[in-house]
Amino acid sequence: MFKEKTLKSNYLFNGKVINLRIDEVQTYSNRTSTREIVEHNGGVGIVAVEDGNVFLVRQYRRPFDEIIYEIPAGKLEKGEEPLNCAFRELEEETGYKALDLKLMTSIYTSPGFCTEKLYIYFCDKMTKTETNFDEDEYLELIKVPILEAKKMILDGTIKDAKSIIGILMLNDFIDK
Amino acid sequence: MFKEKTLKSNYLFNGKVINLRIDEVQTYSNRTSTREIVEHNGGVGIVAVEDGNVFLVRQYRRPFDEIIYEIPAGKLEKGEEPLNCAFRELEEETGYKALDLKLMTSIYTSPGFCTEKLYIYFCDKMTKTETNFDEDEYLELIKVPILEAKKMILDGTIKDAKSIIGILMLNDFIDK
Repeated sequence: MFKEKTLKSNYLFNGKVINLRIDEVQTYSNRTSTREIVEHNGGVGIVAVEDGNVFLVRQYRRPFDEIIYEIPAGKLEKGEEPLNCAFRELEEETGYKALDLKLMTSIYTSPGFCTEKLYIYFCDKMTKTETNFDEDEYLELIKVPILEAKKMILDGTIKDAKSIIGILMLNDFIDK
Repeated sequence: MFKEKTLKSNYLFNGKVINLRIDEVQTYSNRTSTREIVEHNGGVGIVAVEDGNVFLVRQYRRPFDEIIYEIPAGKLEKGEEPLNCAFRELEEETGYKALDLKLMTSIYTSPGFCTEKLYIYFCDKMTKTETNFDEDEYLELIKVPILEAKKMILDGTIKDAKSIIGILMLNDFIDK
């Protein structure tokens, strides 16, 4: 099947979170076109379950100027292993240290224009430690019965893609 | 709960698909910081089901240089109603005209840095018309039994977030 050929790549922005790259490409109809590509390092999300409750964090998200619900999550540092990132982020955002993490799946959030790939982990074995919030974050941690979390997906309260996917896939990981 | 105050917004790029905006903000700890925001118009995805099969399109996605599986989908034009967009995109990508579309949910693909919001629709009533591929796309349409599509999620063949969410939510919409 057809793959576009890259004729030229040009970086317009190199940031803390994203880079912006404009590719000049040769399309399948042999024309020249440009593609706007947002480069993102990717990240992790963790579906952490304790006594039938799933951990959610409420936090402010500037793109929507809203406080939204998400599973604990965070960005990969350059060269970081997703599994290590998941251990780190779970502890930073919940104050719980995972004893074991299982990869549920990995997803492309916006494959049309963005390189972001997220690894979603399942955790049902953890111990309480101290909470160390990320320097620049403001989080509220809540615990919600799994069935309630599923209702929050159906009624539109949980809108974040990785969180929806992790919670909807729980049936295939719990009690295993 | 805390919302960041915007001190200044600065556009670095205005493109066909995205804009890049840098916000200077006042954080909860009263410091000044910058936020990289990717503005995207949003889009739609359609879970179209016929005789127990779900429609998938295979297409090249430059950010991953891969051919991936997705539900039929497309970007919202400026000011376009998501429902109208869903009718248009389903027909353009599958050659089927929806007789009815139900909103399943709307999702935030990357709420940490991107304004993209996607509306996911369910369709099980449609009629065959002509296929009009988008000018710049190259698509292969396939029909997959719903159970097989769910397996393709679990084994990592389907990686696209909106497609995973639409297919996993099918149980709540089918036969209703």
